[in-house]
Amino acid sequence: MTEEAFDVLVVGSCMTDLVSQAPRLPKAGETIHGHKFFIGFGGKGANQCIQAARLGAKAAMVCKVGKDFFGDSYIQNFKDNGVHTEFVGQTSDAATGAASIIVNDEGENAIVIVAGANMLLGGEELQDALPALCRAKVLVCQLEISPQTSLQALRMARENHVKTVFNPAPAIPHLDPNFYRFSDVFCCNESEAELLTGSSVASVEDARRAGRELLRRGCGAVIVTLGPQGCVVLRAQESSSQHVPTSAVTAVDTTGAGDSFIGALAFYMAHYPVMPLEEMARRANQVAGVSVQAVGTQASYPFKKELPAELF
Amino acid sequence: MTEEAFDVLVVGSCMTDLVSQAPRLPKAGETIHGHKFFIGFGGKGANQCIQAARLGAKAAMVCKVGKDFFGDSYIQNFKDNGVHTEFVGQTSDAATGAASIIVNDEGENAIVIVAGANMLLGGEELQDALPALCRAKVLVCQLEISPQTSLQALRMARENHVKTVFNPAPAIPHLDPNFYRFSDVFCCNESEAELLTGSSVASVEDARRAGRELLRRGCGAVIVTLGPQGCVVLRAQESSSQHVPTSAVTAVDTTGAGDSFIGALAFYMAHYPVMPLEEMARRANQVAGVSVQAVGTQASYPFKKELPAELF
Repeated sequence: MTEEAFDVLVVGSCMTDLVSQAPRLPKAGETIHGHKFFIGFGGKGANQCIQAARLGAKAAMVCKVGKDFFGDSYIQNFKDNGVHTEFVGQTSDAATGAASIIVNDEGENAIVIVAGANMLLGGEELQDALPALCRAKVLVCQLEISPQTSLQALRMARENHVKTVFNPAPAIPHLDPNFYRFSDVFCCNESEAELLTGSSVASVEDARRAGRELLRRGCGAVIVTLGPQGCVVLRAQESSSQHVPTSAVTAVDTTGAGDSFIGALAFYMAHYPVMPLEEMARRANQVAGVSVQAVGTQASYPFKKELPAELF
Repeated sequence: MTEEAFDVLVVGSCMTDLVSQAPRLPKAGETIHGHKFFIGFGGKGANQCIQAARLGAKAAMVCKVGKDFFGDSYIQNFKDNGVHTEFVGQTSDAATGAASIIVNDEGENAIVIVAGANMLLGGEELQDALPALCRAKVLVCQLEISPQTSLQALRMARENHVKTVFNPAPAIPHLDPNFYRFSDVFCCNESEAELLTGSSVASVEDARRAGRELLRRGCGAVIVTLGPQGCVVLRAQESSSQHVPTSAVTAVDTTGAGDSFIGALAFYMAHYPVMPLEEMARRANQVAGVSVQAVGTQASYPFKKELPAELF
């Protein structure tokens, strides 16, 4: 390992999104006709990694896909986005993760996720990636792979003084307490904060309260994102919490905006290690704000060259 | 056109089945986790063509798929099954037809079909196929493509004294009267017969009554399939109707059984032109009866070599 260290290493999920648009959602026993079908690249881990790479991070993905067409396509997608793929494994034991998404004319959706190969990412792959993980600037994890694998990756990062960002999504009600302890930045949205703390999170005040509770569980810092209301940032060393508002934009598709925020945050943590976390969050809000103004998940994520110079 | 004529020409649909198995079906706004995802080959037209080919028919498919991975895969699937593909078109204007199928643990399913490229099959493609259509022994059509295209194909066959099998599936309540007039054999299941005649079809007697009504509309013959109860056969020249029972089998997956029946029927009509229609229906019942004893749609369709010699 003589080459340059990675800015951002993501240990997480890849999913092929299979999207059907139909006038309404089908009931049991029903066959209905939709008007459009398309395939997209998704999965929280991959989304975050690709947003970080598009901002200029030297990024690598640690994940598992199937030995199938969707797996091959995803690897090509990583390459097309400048994400390093030496830690992307392919298995014959499960299919590439797939999300069947049915969207009705009101924009409501019903989703079935089959995690497939994602659930086979484990300790062996983490060991293979360890030399790179040890030297990375930031590690990012979520919960779309086996929680044990995420926790082990966070532990390895902590042991090697690598900064960690943990995104507890999709939320599970009883999170192993070590997830909090191993998180330099614990970043969740309103509904995840609500599920984890057991209290409603609808306002900035609610988010401050939930953030304090999460901080008490051992995180280095907490960010609770609030969509158009921006986010709330709390740090273990400080008693105060900061509300970081965001500028108003006309959202056309918010799918994947949370992942854009986290990918951007990881980029800033890697590139500007002494920047205050509030400022990183403010900039990450702006990046995610650009993503909601275009349709699609990864398709809407901005590249560095499309963003104002003051963000860099 | 000096080469041998086709036994069976199918003008119809190709669909990629995207199947997610989950404990239950998701509601609007919900994301649930499924346990298995797989991709299958489907579409009524293609299913019927492949069953005919597996029984030994020289079969060709007239259809349209997208210029995409699913389209390429489907063409390969036809080749693997010995179906001629010179009339399979590929378009960049729509994606290959896709059926998102969610199956719950009780075996109930919810399906969204996006017909895509199938709806772009039209008069131009029929003109290209006309030299082959004129000389084919049997033409088979359904309703998963534009009804006008199906009707035009049936009209061309009729004008050229090619025998026609029409399968009005999925059923539409107001069928152009020419569909009946251009059908040498009009073959439907209980629910299609019910929708077309407006009367309940639950028993053999109901099927006889519905069959007589459909025959009155101008078909040469009518077959109403009744699943485990076999089918009812009626001919314009005869006043009586025949109930053709089927031998009892243990069904494990009835998906695509109706298409297996029709593909087999087309094979018998092409290969044994003087065989009584009741005998063809009896044999087609047996072929479809084999298909329900294995899982999958096309995967469950028997080849000639797997069937008893008396069927040939």
